[in-house]
Amino acid sequence: MREIAAELGMHAGNLYYYFENKQALLAFCQEDSLARLLALVDRVRRLDLGADQKLFLLVTGHTFCVNRDLPGSLAHLAVEALEEPWRGKIQSKRDRYEVALRELIEDGVGEGTFRPVDAKIATLAILGALNWTVRWFSPEGEQAIEEIAEEFAEFAVRGLLDASAAFEAPARELWLQIDQPLEEKS
Amino acid sequence: MREIAAELGMHAGNLYYYFENKQALLAFCQEDSLARLLALVDRVRRLDLGADQKLFLLVTGHTFCVNRDLPGSLAHLAVEALEEPWRGKIQSKRDRYEVALRELIEDGVGEGTFRPVDAKIATLAILGALNWTVRWFSPEGEQAIEEIAEEFAEFAVRGLLDASAAFEAPARELWLQIDQPLEEKS
Repeated sequence: MREIAAELGMHAGNLYYYFENKQALLAFCQEDSLARLLALVDRVRRLDLGADQKLFLLVTGHTFCVNRDLPGSLAHLAVEALEEPWRGKIQSKRDRYEVALRELIEDGVGEGTFRPVDAKIATLAILGALNWTVRWFSPEGEQAIEEIAEEFAEFAVRGLLDASAAFEAPARELWLQIDQPLEEKS
Repeated sequence: MREIAAELGMHAGNLYYYFENKQALLAFCQEDSLARLLALVDRVRRLDLGADQKLFLLVTGHTFCVNRDLPGSLAHLAVEALEEPWRGKIQSKRDRYEVALRELIEDGVGEGTFRPVDAKIATLAILGALNWTVRWFSPEGEQAIEEIAEEFAEFAVRGLLDASAAFEAPARELWLQIDQPLEEKS
C-alpha cells in the first residue's frame, strides 16, 4: 500500500482512508474496469448495425478502456490474486462480459456474417488478445492506441468473417466516439 | 516449494536437490516451454508452405505445447515474477520467439497472402490469445485441445488473410504431427 500511495503521490494514510487493504483496492480497480466494459458492450449491442460492425466497435472500445482510460489496469489481470468475498463478485461480472461477447458472436453466426465458429472459443481468443494488451502497451511506444485498436478490431472481425461476407470498418468517428468514458456518456 | 513438491508427489528435500529456490524452478519451467516453442517455430519456418499454412501450424503447435505437453505452464505467464539473472535470459528467448512469428507474418504480407497488416501488432494479438489459453484451458473442459487449436489457428490466419486469398487449413495429420514433443522429433 505504501508503494502504491507513493506512486499516486498520496500518503499511505490517505489511501487507507479509502481502502482498508490491498485486496479492497485491487477489487476496486477490477470492478471499475468491468463496469466500463459492461456499459460498453450494452451500448454496442443496442446499435442498429451488423455483428461485424458491433464487434469492431467493441474491440476498439475495450482496447481504449483498459489502456487509455484506465492506465495501470494490469490489476485487471490479477484475478487469482483476489480473495473472497471480492473474487466471486468480480468473477460474475467477468462472466457477464464474456457471455455478452459470446452472444454478439453467436448473433453474427446466426445472421451469416460470421463463419460457423465455436463462439465460446472465439470469445476466449479475442479476450486473450485484448487482456494481453495491458502487458505490453505503452503510451510512449511506437504505435498510437488508435492504431492498435484498429488493427486488433480488423483482425478479430476478419478472423470470424464468413468467406462470402464483405467487411468495411465503421467510420473512425463512430469508433472513437463509442468508448467515451462512462461519465460523459450516461 | 513445499506445496509444489506435494503437488508433484515429491519430498521438498528432493525438489531442492534440483532447484535451489522457487526462482530457479520458475525459470526452468519458462526455459523449457520457450525451448520447445523456438524449436517449433524453426521446424515450421523450414517447411515448404505458404505463410498462411505455416501460421496455422505454428498456432496449433503452440496451443498443444503450452496446454497439452506442459500442463502447469501458467508459470509461463509469470515473467514479472522472475528476478535477475533469470529474467534477462528468459526475456531474450521470448523476444526471439516473438521476432520469428513477426517475420513469418511479414513474409505472408510480402508474398501477398496476408493483408498489409502491422506485423508487430498482429504478432502481439496472436501471442496474447495463445498465452491466455493457459488461464482457461482445462483437460476436463467441454472442448478438446485439438478443437481449440484448430479454431485458434483458423481465426488467426483468417484475421490476417488478404481478401483475395483463398485459404484451406493444412491436413490434420500435418498439424497433429508438427508439434510432437521435442524428444521425439530431433
